[in-house]
Parts: sequence; structure tokens; C-alpha cells
Amino acid sequence: MLEGKDELVKQYLASIPFDRRLFRQDIRGSLAHAKMLAKQRIITEDDAAAIIKGLTSIQQEIEQGEFQFRPELEDIHMNVETRLQEKLGDIAGKLHTARSRNDQIALDMRLFLKEETSRTLTRLNDLQSSLLQLAEANQDVIMPGYTHLQQAQPVLLAHHLLAYFDMLQRDKERFRDCLNRTDVLPLGSGALAGVTYAIDRDFLARELGFGKVSTNSLDAVSDRDFVVEFEAASALTMMHLSRLAEEIILWTSDEFGFIQIGEAYTTGSSIMPQKRNPDVAELARGKTGRVYGNLMATLTTMKALPLAYNRDMQEDKERVFDTLDTLDLSLQAFAEMIRTVKVNVGRVRAAFRKDYVLATDLADYLVKKGLPFREAHRVVSELSIYAMNNDRCFRELTLSEYNKFSPLFGQDVYDITLESSIAARNIPGGTSLQQVQIALARARQLVERTP
Amino acid sequence: MLEGKDELVKQYLASIPFDRRLFRQDIRGSLAHAKMLAKQRIITEDDAAAIIKGLTSIQQEIEQGEFQFRPELEDIHMNVETRLQEKLGDIAGKLHTARSRNDQIALDMRLFLKEETSRTLTRLNDLQSSLLQLAEANQDVIMPGYTHLQQAQPVLLAHHLLAYFDMLQRDKERFRDCLNRTDVLPLGSGALAGVTYAIDRDFLARELGFGKVSTNSLDAVSDRDFVVEFEAASALTMMHLSRLAEEIILWTSDEFGFIQIGEAYTTGSSIMPQKRNPDVAELARGKTGRVYGNLMATLTTMKALPLAYNRDMQEDKERVFDTLDTLDLSLQAFAEMIRTVKVNVGRVRAAFRKDYVLATDLADYLVKKGLPFREAHRVVSELSIYAMNNDRCFRELTLSEYNKFSPLFGQDVYDITLESSIAARNIPGGTSLQQVQIALARARQLVERTP
Amino acid sequence: MLEGKDELVKQYLASIPFDRRLFRQDIRGSLAHAKMLAKQRIITEDDAAAIIKGLTSIQQEIEQGEFQFRPELEDIHMNVETRLQEKLGDIAGKLHTARSRNDQIALDMRLFLKEETSRTLTRLNDLQSSLLQLAEANQDVIMPGYTHLQQAQPVLLAHHLLAYFDMLQRDKERFRDCLNRTDVLPLGSGALAGVTYAIDRDFLARELGFGKVSTNSLDAVSDRDFVVEFEAASALTMMHLSRLAEEIILWTSDEFGFIQIGEAYTTGSSIMPQKRNPDVAELARGKTGRVYGNLMATLTTMKALPLAYNRDMQEDKERVFDTLDTLDLSLQAFAEMIRTVKVNVGRVRAAFRKDYVLATDLADYLVKKGLPFREAHRVVSELSIYAMNNDRCFRELTLSEYNKFSPLFGQDVYDITLESSIAARNIPGGTSLQQVQIALARARQLVERTP
Amino acid sequence: MLEGKDELVKQYLASIPFDRRLFRQDIRGSLAHAKMLAKQRIITEDDAAAIIKGLTSIQQEIEQGEFQFRPELEDIHMNVETRLQEKLGDIAGKLHTARSRNDQIALDMRLFLKEETSRTLTRLNDLQSSLLQLAEANQDVIMPGYTHLQQAQPVLLAHHLLAYFDMLQRDKERFRDCLNRTDVLPLGSGALAGVTYAIDRDFLARELGFGKVSTNSLDAVSDRDFVVEFEAASALTMMHLSRLAEEIILWTSDEFGFIQIGEAYTTGSSIMPQKRNPDVAELARGKTGRVYGNLMATLTTMKALPLAYNRDMQEDKERVFDTLDTLDLSLQAFAEMIRTVKVNVGRVRAAFRKDYVLATDLADYLVKKGLPFREAHRVVSELSIYAMNNDRCFRELTLSEYNKFSPLFGQDVYDITLESSIAARNIPGGTSLQQVQIALARARQLVERTP
Repeated sequence: MLEGKDELVKQYLASIPFDRRLFRQDIRGSLAHAKMLAKQRIITEDDAAAIIKGLTSIQQEIEQGEFQFRPELEDIHMNVETRLQEKLGDIAGKLHTARSRNDQIALDMRLFLKEETSRTLTRLNDLQSSLLQLAEANQDVIMPGYTHLQQAQPVLLAHHLLAYFDMLQRDKERFRDCLNRTDVLPLGSGALAGVTYAIDRDFLARELGFGKVSTNSLDAVSDRDFVVEFEAASALTMMHLSRLAEEIILWTSDEFGFIQIGEAYTTGSSIMPQKRNPDVAELARGKTGRVYGNLMATLTTMKALPLAYNRDMQEDKERVFDTLDTLDLSLQAFAEMIRTVKVNVGRVRAAFRKDYVLATDLADYLVKKGLPFREAHRVVSELSIYAMNNDRCFRELTLSEYNKFSPLFGQDVYDITLESSIAARNIPGGTSLQQVQIALARARQLVERTP
Repeated sequence: MLEGKDELVKQYLASIPFDRRLFRQDIRGSLAHAKMLAKQRIITEDDAAAIIKGLTSIQQEIEQGEFQFRPELEDIHMNVETRLQEKLGDIAGKLHTARSRNDQIALDMRLFLKEETSRTLTRLNDLQSSLLQLAEANQDVIMPGYTHLQQAQPVLLAHHLLAYFDMLQRDKERFRDCLNRTDVLPLGSGALAGVTYAIDRDFLARELGFGKVSTNSLDAVSDRDFVVEFEAASALTMMHLSRLAEEIILWTSDEFGFIQIGEAYTTGSSIMPQKRNPDVAELARGKTGRVYGNLMATLTTMKALPLAYNRDMQEDKERVFDTLDTLDLSLQAFAEMIRTVKVNVGRVRAAFRKDYVLATDLADYLVKKGLPFREAHRVVSELSIYAMNNDRCFRELTLSEYNKFSPLFGQDVYDITLESSIAARNIPGGTSLQQVQIALARARQLVERTP
Repeated sequence: MLEGKDELVKQYLASIPFDRRLFRQDIRGSLAHAKMLAKQRIITEDDAAAIIKGLTSIQQEIEQGEFQFRPELEDIHMNVETRLQEKLGDIAGKLHTARSRNDQIALDMRLFLKEETSRTLTRLNDLQSSLLQLAEANQDVIMPGYTHLQQAQPVLLAHHLLAYFDMLQRDKERFRDCLNRTDVLPLGSGALAGVTYAIDRDFLARELGFGKVSTNSLDAVSDRDFVVEFEAASALTMMHLSRLAEEIILWTSDEFGFIQIGEAYTTGSSIMPQKRNPDVAELARGKTGRVYGNLMATLTTMKALPLAYNRDMQEDKERVFDTLDTLDLSLQAFAEMIRTVKVNVGRVRAAFRKDYVLATDLADYLVKKGLPFREAHRVVSELSIYAMNNDRCFRELTLSEYNKFSPLFGQDVYDITLESSIAARNIPGGTSLQQVQIALARARQLVERTP
Repeated sequence: MLEGKDELVKQYLASIPFDRRLFRQDIRGSLAHAKMLAKQRIITEDDAAAIIKGLTSIQQEIEQGEFQFRPELEDIHMNVETRLQEKLGDIAGKLHTARSRNDQIALDMRLFLKEETSRTLTRLNDLQSSLLQLAEANQDVIMPGYTHLQQAQPVLLAHHLLAYFDMLQRDKERFRDCLNRTDVLPLGSGALAGVTYAIDRDFLARELGFGKVSTNSLDAVSDRDFVVEFEAASALTMMHLSRLAEEIILWTSDEFGFIQIGEAYTTGSSIMPQKRNPDVAELARGKTGRVYGNLMATLTTMKALPLAYNRDMQEDKERVFDTLDTLDLSLQAFAEMIRTVKVNVGRVRAAFRKDYVLATDLADYLVKKGLPFREAHRVVSELSIYAMNNDRCFRELTLSEYNKFSPLFGQDVYDITLESSIAARNIPGGTSLQQVQIALARARQLVERTP
């Protein structure tokens, strides 16, 4: 409680400017606590009923913007409790029986992050769905596949998009694992040592929808692993978004010109009217830093803290709130933005200025005619240099030119095309249309399950 | 291949100084690949047999220190392949059929991290075991429980130690989840688009012990999530060790004096002969920074990389090697160090200079006599100030002094002791001996399962 | 401009919720720009006068809370400019001549950080001043000096406090160097390539108080080094505060008990009325993570951005605002908290449970009698073990006991005391009272200069 | 000292595997210390002479690879001292008089980083020189200037390259400031409290080339600010390299095709013989993560350490060694790589597919004819949309088409070209040839000074 402190200290210590966000969870926890206290005859049914009624009306006050949050009351717990006291008098003071702010805040955070993680799963699913639609709608578009940002081998655009689908699928799994470890009731741990009342923790868990009950009170009040784990999973998701963002930025550049984004997701310039900047993608790429930074912040804060609760831990909230808001908006903005993408099929095709991306296929051609791979690689390497030096495509070379490099080349070398290259990669996970259609179907199933 | 490059570039690009560590995984992958190529009739049985024999002898050469690693051959793959060529001539060149260094390195890293993760699980289990032993051996020791590093309520030392046990249990779960996502075969993805040969990826997965096969070739060669996830799980484990380290450092200080560490785990001073410094604990606390930094490094490296493979990704190895070595040594050193801990029961007891840690119990006493908790808290707060101002313990106050603060205090207030306080916290997760013994038994079961 | 965008995109892209903080700098820059445009006859004197009047009244509107910030206008620049247009009509549109939002935001940030850096210097100076006062008031208090948190050698408390003074002095130097690199006018760089009007950049620099003018327009609009450097300097300062915080937390613990903090800077417990938790120190220690995280965030955001301006850079603001607010409040809270510290001289003295901290002095004694240092160290080491095993202080040993370890010990060995140990360290930077008084006087001079 | 410890502890604690790198600095410090001890008559001239001779021969042994480093001797200090004892017997033990390993390691690190910082300055200068040469050799090449990776306005390639020159110039300044704070002698601080001998610290400073002497012994042995500051300056430099790397990767892509890098700085593919991957640039971009991570690591390690020396600090070395090696190689590799760059002038010119980059110039044209800037911007915006929708360049529009948008357009609108656009930006810092030549001359002067 910060009553009587000077303004500076109040401002420094008060968490109410940010933990007010937890008011629903805080009240929900208190409702369950009150019910349990009555059930266990620690307080009377009448007291419990009064408390429950009081809390319910406080929730309404907050939701309707009528509640006056007071920094001198430090945090959401004391703001709610003090208001309850104004309403009920001394009865209110019974709510805090068999409870401490230490297990209370741990409870609030777990309730909150469980909800947020579920929402994140939905957002991830929605972005997957939007990538999937774009892939489904462009199944026959062949684009250059890159390594080192150099054109390497042709791939289907749909295959490329599904790579991001797979990343997001792993993200969903990670958030689910994290959710599983968040799903533990800390209430009953008291300040640090457990409480001296005959409370029913299993009842509390059922009431509040927790799958497990914490097994060590000291750990339960000083554990923020679930916060860090949420931030780490978020950092990976943002890393994936930053990669997708980078490609969108490249693909909308004048030099690539592969796609156009709907005008709603680009902005103009204050000085250069011709521009359509991919601001949403850029900003998401930039926000990756923020989410990484929040992870580092919480890890640093928790470093070397002795048991049990320390005030340092109050720092977990603003960081994870910032992370989840960033993630939530970014995932939504991407899902919508992807829905507006138009593929410039002509520019994509024109990007294959020469057909050197077929070099691997030429080498594989020679292997299938009997050359060991390394030897085939050497031959095609020399052939490529010859073609490049003469500024010719492979398909423009004559058979006798081919044969200068190997007698194994026959007329069927001209059957090697972008299309044949794609078709040949017909193994699970490969870019052939058949495989990609299998992958699209599998992806469709995954997004249509509940996230 | 770096032949003909100048020294500086060789030094800059060559990964062989660190990826040589993957030689077993690299050869193991090649053995399975050769078998599969033969089974699929992509190469002959004879060629496969020669390749397998050659690879086996190369493994021996490396293990016996007879292998000459050459930086100009860039990486472990080309060092092994070139040696194979020296042994077999052109046949060796067939091994690289239907494979690229991009899916090969992804395979090596996954094989390697699967093994390392299993080892980490064993190490975590062993440290749990060592904490458990210490807890079992000191079941009746009551120590001050702290919040804000201020004495708060009495707890059992065993309960305190089990808090760390629980943290490590979560660590094991996280590493298991991570292992599950590492357990995916990338081989067959080729450079980025899949291969043009009729390979059998399921056979490869079975041969190499993978539970799943990757579903998108572009993703499979550019995915380092499993590395980041290992580093994130390690960061959390090191955070837990840093907290334990901090407490060990506090507890061995002159001022606390709660424990002594075996001399093998302390060092003296070059100038102050009387000192026994807890260097192992300090260094582990310090190494937390390194493991956090490695996580940050890999996340940063992966930020905004377009698909598919980019040379930046080579940076994943040294960071994760450093992390796993740090983690491995730290877990071992802690497990051994904890085994040498002697508890100074006298100093622990003496730490309760006054019995103010019983304040919560006094408040609970009043609640049970009918006072609302908040009112009880206020009464005990005033009582505490009175006692402190008079430099007296609670137990030294007379009943009439008690009664000045509340008429509810009776003779039985003197029954409130450290022991009664412990006993009263008899709810699941609480510090009562009964609950702690349940927790010890549960913990014993957990460590005796395979990790 | 975000007019017509949907709510999600507006919310994602709009910077006005945070860059409105720059309104004074933005208007100040515009005032100077308008004056310059008139002076260079790019706009008329009358237009300039109208613009200046309009901007001045907008500043008043904002300061008086009458200004309506509109997210659809995206940022502070367009909010101000649009309001100017409402006031002046088309004339307002002339203000943006020879300027872009890219050089404008670079200007605003530099103006802002110059002011903030100056304020930081004042805060650092004030904390130094408060540490200095505490040191001056406790010049004769001898405390244990620690290495590895083990008592090592006696030091003056004043000497210990001055160590923090020196850290903060380096911080001031770093912020001054950073200020020097922030003090560069970017205006005139346009969007990226410079402007096509005959502007006078030197005039702008003088008007706005800049010491230098940027020399490359592409760099000027895409440089955020000065932001990162501010964050790095802040991270070091927070690291110093975290160390001081750690010591305050230790020193106020029951086990150390060296100091008491004024009640205004501690908080009680919701459940344990006896506690006085050092929350301000704990929270500052925790906030170190936040400031480290912000540094990492901005570094990550800037990684691998091609020239020139990219939308990612918008992310610099919230991070650095958070850092400077954290730093500002933390420095203030510490300065005030330190002013309330009471030293418990008795507990500090009592901490020397035995006099083993004199071991180095005993070794030096033997050296001065002719023994090589390493040999002296060995002798005192054995002596220490003997004393510890017998639970005796050095001063309780008889001379004949001493002589069992070395014949060089004479009666004067009993002259070695905590006081003599302090006095003997009479070299520059040492802990003798004489040296410490020199250091106090030097420190006094440093804080009384302008920061 | 780790004699008698088990292998695990030895391996964990021993710093000799990495601090052996400091052997020259360690011996140099000892030589100065011995001289000073003799000068102050703390040891005899004869002893000093013997010690100096012994140390000199040890240095030779190490340099010639004949020295046997022993982990059980823990660190470089004890390895050298023990060898000295083998050579000189007891006299060797006198060297450690008035010194501790705590001030000794602080000295070694400062000596080492002073040298490394000077080397870094030279490397930075060399890279600047190589960028400058490329700029000088391509003064008349006009390229698209980008914001948001969208073509914005034409700039000179030389101007673009000089933006990196300016970044590196700031880097040099930061390293110089850092050097200034590293240039402080810690020797004489002893273990933590100063020494009890009449040493001459000014003499030591002069002997070892330090400009200042530390003023507080506790701070001097526990200060690692100079390490963090070196890492922070390195992080900024790597950030700059990562931006340059990104552009090199873009510019060598098939889609941009602006430059070619010498073959020595690219690598081929194991499977795609046609590729020339910009591996050096990619790897440098990737290594940015490593350097950021090292900064984070050291900051984390130092967080919340109480005074004075703690074993955690041993962790500073490997991180900063890794950073400086990375920086050193990266700067060298870039300087050499830039020297091999060939500009494909044709592709650069062809990148201006349309002349929309002249839009700002068109707007400025209208402003100069009397339109307020915002109005001019609006007109050109509409004109641009018209041109784009009709797939025409500005220069292909007829004057009557122009006049549909504004009557102010006259025949002279066709004088607006890429060349006129460049020429018009003739203000300090702008991209006109005249300004760029001034900047080139200034840059030439800066690199020809000593770095």
C-alpha cells in the first residue's frame, strides 16, 4: 500500500496503470475464492454471497468506466478490495483470508495468459488460413526458388507459401505446450509457505478451469517460467513473420515486382507521390526487435533472484502485455494483408532471365545416364560457365555444344524445362504439383480443426 | 569449397573448426543415405557396400585422431566426402546423389541435438536427485522463508529445496517438447525443392530413428526453430540455476552461514587465505549471461532471412554448442556440489533473531477467533510495531500486553511457535512436514523413472 | 496518411499515440524551418509570419490539452500540419517545402534526446551528490569489504559508497560523448537525397542549437546510432544501479542489518505486517531487464536494413522513451532513497564475527619482516586454518601460538587491527581515511560543477 | 588454485584455456610491477633483475610454443608465476607483493583492449578507404535511391557509398571514446581495498602507457564497463556491416544485378553449379547476432553483482574475445571484398524501369512556379496515377496531358531528368556531384589521418 508515500515513490511502485488490465481475472479468482471459503466454512454463506454480489457490481463499474483506479492503492488487488470495503464494510476484509497478493497475482497472470494463448492460437490459424487460400489460388505459378538470395531451382509459389504454413504450425504446437504448463493453479500457496486454513484447492482448480494444482508453494509464487515461455514462443513467431515480411518487401520492390499488396496495406509518401510502401510488412519486421527485447528483459529480470517473491517480478507484466499485443496485431494485420495479395504472374515468369536454375536438373539428367553425381556436377558447372560467358540460355545451346561437355547429352535434354523440373521433385515434401496438392489438402485439414 | 581462396576468406567462411564436432552424425546420415540409394536402386549394392565400408573407416580415422581436417574443404561434409574419394575414387561421387549440403546439415544438427537433449534430460534428473537427497536428509530443519529477502514465514528447508526440484521438472518437460519437434527427418529436401530421385524418406527416418518426416522442403532446409527452442529451454534452466546459485552464495556468506560447501567446490584467494569462495555457484550465475546471449544471437541471426538456406545460418552451430556445453558442465557441477552441502542447523535456527516471522500466524489466530482478516492484519501490525519498538519477541510479551491490542488473544497464543506455524500449513503444496513428505515421495518417483 | 484505412491498419501503423510526445520539438523545428524559408526567399515573410503564428497557437492548444490528436493523420507531423491548414488554408502547405517527414523525424528525435540527455546528466549528478553526502556523514565507519560475497578485508563505508560515485562519473562521461554525437542537424536531407531548394542549413543549426550539420543525406535519415548509443549508456547505468540495489537489499536483510531505509522507500506486506521490504531497490534491479531489452530491441530492429528510411525505424521511439523514463525515475528514486539511509553502526561492526579479514595484513606484516609474499601467504593460510579450527580470533592467539607458524611474529602483531588495516592502505585509490578524504573532496568538486 | 580438485571442477573453473591469450599483457604488467617494487625498495634491485630476466624468458617460451599451460594452475597469472618459481625459487614469490589477481586481471584486460581498440580503428579506417576508392571510381553512376526498398529518388552511387563511410566514422569516434575510458591503470588496487605498501602508481602508469590512474580500489577491481562499452561499440559497427551486407546481397541478386563481387568472395553450390553466392556478406550479416549476443551476455553477467570482485566476472573474456575476433575478420573481409566490386552500370541504369523517381522533382517544379508544396504534391500524385494506369513514363506524356493536371506545366518540364534531379540537390549533404565531390575530398582527408 502506497498511501502516504510521496508522488515519486507512488509513481515508481504502483502497478495499477498496467495491472488494471487483469481486473476480470482478479475478480474471477476472488469469486471462486469466496465460494470456496464458504464451502469450507471458513466464512459464512451470507458473507460469501455479499462478497460475490459486491465483486460482481465492481466488475460492472470497471467495465462501464465508472471505477476510479487509485495509484495510492498500488495494484489491482487492493483497488478492488478497497472498493469492496466501501460497499460492504468489514465483511470485505474476510475475502483475503487464506490468500496473499503473491498467490493472487500468480493466479491472475495464469488466467490471463491462458486466455491470451488461446487467442494467439486462433490468430495463428487465421494467418495459416490466409496463406493457404493464396497458395490454393495460385497452384500453377512457378517462381524462382532462392538460396543465398540467388536463384537456385524453380519451385511452385504454393510450395513456398506452405513453408510459412509449416512454421506457423510449429508455432501453434509451441503455444499449446506452453499453455499446458500455464494451466496450473497457484492459489493456496499464500505468501510463500501455503496457508493455515483448510482450503480446497481442487475445488478452486475446477471452478477456475485449471487442469493441475501447483505442488510447491515457494515455487508457485516465484515461478514466471510460463511468462518467459510465452515470450520465447512469441519471439519465434515474430521471427517467422519477419522472414515473411522480408519476402513481401522484396517481392513488392520495383526490381522483383512479383506481387502487389492491397492499397489498404501500403502507404504513400509525404514527398514522393508515386510510392506504395509495404509499411505493414516493414513494421512487423521492425517489431521483431521489440518482442526479442521483451524476452531478454524478463529473462534478465528473473536472473539470480532468491526465493520466493521479489518485487522485481512486477516487471513481468508490461513486457508480456507488449509482446502479446504486438503479436496479436501483427498476426491479424498479416492475415488481412495476405488476403489482398495479387500475384503478377508475368513478372514472376520474367524473373527467370536465363534458365540457369535448371542446372541441377541437367546434372541429375547426367546421373540418370550413368555419371556419378560429383562428375555430373563438374560437367554442368563447365557448361554453365560456357553458357554464361556466351550470354546464352541452356535451351539455346545446340546439341553439339552440349556434347563438347559430355557425350551423354541427347536430344531429350531439351525436355528439361521449368515445368519438368517441378514435376520431377515428386517426393514427400517436394515441390511437384502432386506433392503440393497433398500438402494443401493436409493444410486445409489442419486449419479447419479448432486451432 | 574454398580451394584457391585467400587465407582470410578461408578463415572467415570455413566451418570445419566447429562443425567437425558433427562427424558422427554426418557419417551416420551418409550410411543411411547410401543404404537407401541402393535399396531404391539409385546406386548399385556394390557401390553402396564400398561407400559404407569407406565411411566406416573414415569414422575410425577421425575417432583415432588420424584424420586431417582441411579448412579449404570448408565443412565436415566435404572433408568426409573428399576423403571418401581418396579411398574409393569416382564411386564416392555417387553418395551425394539425391542430397544437398543444405538437407545434410539440417540432418546432422537434428541428429546431434536429439542426442544432446537426451543427455540434458539425464543431467537435469541427476541434479534433481541430488537436491532430493539433500532435502530427504534434512526433513526437520526449519529455516526462514523469504520474500524480498526479508524473513517472512518459517518453512522447511526440504520444502525450499523442492521448489528447485519443481523448476527442473518443468525444464525436463520443456526439453521433451523440444525433442519432439527436433525429431523430424529433413533428408530428401535437397537444396531447397526436393530431389528428382525416387528416394524412400520413410526408410531413412526408420534407419535414423526419426519419428516424423518433414513436409515442406523449403522449410526443412531453412528451419532452425529447434535450435532456438533448445537455446530458450536452456536459458530457462540457467535462470533456475542462477537463482539456486544466488542462494548458495548467500547461504555460505559470513552473515547467513546456513551451509558449507565441500572444499572441492570452493576456492581460496591468492591474497586472503581465510576465504572459501563459492566459485562454482558464482561462475554458473555468471554463465547465465552467456546462455541468454546465445539465444539472442541465434534469434537475431534468423531475423528477416528470406527463404531458403542463407549462409547466415552457419552461425547457429557455435552458439548452440556453447550453450549445451555450458549447460552440461553447469548441471554436473551443481549436482556434485549439492552432494557436498552440509547444513549448519545451528546457524539456520539462530537466523530467527526475533520471532516476527510468526506474525501471519498471529493474524490467522485472530481470524479463527472471528476477526475479519484485514482487521486481524491491522491488529498484528500494531502489535509488531510495539514489539519491535520495545526490542521484544512476540513470545516475550505478556498476555495483558497482547490484550491491549485485542481482547481475543488468550493463553493459547503462546502455542504459536515455528513448529506450529510449519504444521499449520498442511494443504497440498504447503510446507507442513506431512505435505513435504508427500512431495518428497512424489519427487523420488519422478527421478527414478527414466528421465 | 492513414485516412480510409481500416481500423486495424490504422492502429498498427499510427505513431501518434507515442510520437505526440515530440510535439514541442516538432513545432520548434517547424518554426526554425519557416524562418529559414523566408530568409532564403523560398516563401514570403508574410507567409512565414502566418505560419509561425499558427504553429505557436497550435503549441498552446496542445499544452492546454485542447488539441485533438487524430490517428488517421498517422503522426505528429501530419497532425500539426493538418491543424495548421485548418487555421491558415493553403499557406500551411508551404511549410513542407524543402523538407520530408524523414528528415523531420530525425530532427525531432535529436532535439528530444539532446534535452533528455541533459536531464539525465543532472539526475546522475544528483544521485552522486546523495551518495557523497552519505559517505561524508559516515567517514569513520569500518565495514567488511567483500569479494565473492565473502568478507575479505575491512574498508571504509565511505570508500565503498565512492565506488558507486566513480561508476556514475563514467556514466556521465558516456552520456556526454553520446550527446556530442546527437548534436548534429539532419534537416535539409529531405526524403533521402537532399532538397532542391537553396536552403541555409547553417542557419537552421544555429537557430536550433546544433553544433554540427550532417554530411550525407542518406545517412542522416537512416541513422539511429544516437538512439542505440543512448540506450547502451542507459543499460550501463542501470547495471550500476542494479549492483547498488543488490547491496541495499542485502544490507537491509535481517542477516546483514547494516542499514535502514526510510519508511517512504519500503513497503509492508499484505499478509506479514512485520516486514519492511526494500521495494524501490528491488524494482530498480528488476527494471534493469527492461532497459537491456530495449537496447536489444533497437539493435535487432536496425539489423540488416537497407538504406535509407524504412518503416521499421518507427520502432525506435517507444523503446527509447521507455528507457529514458525508467532511467529518470530510477535515478530520482535512488537519490531520494539514499538520502533516507541510516547506518546501523553496531550491526556493521558486529558483522566482523571473527577478525579473519586481517589475514592479508598479517601476510603483509611477515613480508615487511623479510618473507617473500607467497611464503607469507602460505604461513598465514596455515595460521588461519588453525584459528578457525579452534574457533578463535587472530587476536585471541598467543604469541607462542603465532610463533609455531613463523618466528617472525613479534608482539607488534597485536597492533594489527581493523583500524590499522584501513590506515595502512594509504595509496591513491586506497581505503585509508586520508585517501578517502582526498576522494571525497574531489567528488565534492565534481558534483558541484554543472553536470 | 585448482590443484587437487576433481576434473569436472577444474574444467569448470579454469580460465587458462582462454586467458592464456593475455600472456603478453600479463608479463608486461609484471615487468613494470617488478621495476616499481625495486624503485620503491619494496624488493631489492637484484631480486627485480632476476624476476625480469625470468619473465622475459617465460615470454619467449610461450611465444615459441614451449610453455606447458596447466589447467590445475587455473589462470594465466598462476601459470606464469609458477613457472617463475621453477626458475627462480623463492624470489619469484616476491613478485606478488602489493598485488592481487584482482587488480592484475583488470590490468591485463585494459592493456589488451587498448591494443585491440587501436587495431579496430585501423581496420575501420581501411574499410572506409576501400569504400572511398569504390566511390571515387564511380562518381558519375546514378542509381535509384530507396526508401522502404521502393525506388524513391535518384542518387549518386558514390553518395550512397559515402553514407557507410559516415557510419564508420562515427564508429571510430565511439571506439576512441571507449579507448579513453579504458586507459586507466587499476594496478595498486590490490584485492579490493588498496595495498599496504608504498607503491608508486604514477610510475606504473607511465611504464605501461596509461593516461590515468584509477581513483577507487573497489571500483577498479569490479569495473567491467570498458568491456561492455567495447562490445556496445562493436554491436553498432556490426549493425552497420549488416546493412551494407544486406545491400550487397540485394545488389548481387539476379533481380537487381547492380554489382559483381570478385569470385574470391563468393562461393559456389554443391548442387547448383551456376551460382555465385555472396557468402562473405551473408556470414557477416549472420555474425551480427553473435556480437549482439555477446553484449547481452556481459550485461547480464554484470547485473546485480555486489562489490567487489565476483567469480562471475571471469565470463567477460570469452565474450569479448569472440566479439573482437568477429569484428576484426569481418572488417578485413569487407575491406577486401569491396575492393573487388565491379559495378554493372548498364543494369543500374536499367533499374529505372519508369522515371517515376522524378515525381519529387516535378512537385518541386510546380512549387517553384508558385504552387504551395502540398498542392503541388497532390497534383503530381494524380499525374503519377494517370501515368501508371497508362503504363507511361513521365517523359512520354504530352504537354497537354500535363496541363490537364496543372496549367503551370510548360515545355521546360521535359528538362527534368535523372541528371537534373541529381544536380538540383546541391546543398551540403546532398547528392549533387559538386556536393559529393566535396564529401569525397573530406573523406579522403579523414582516412589519411592516422585512424
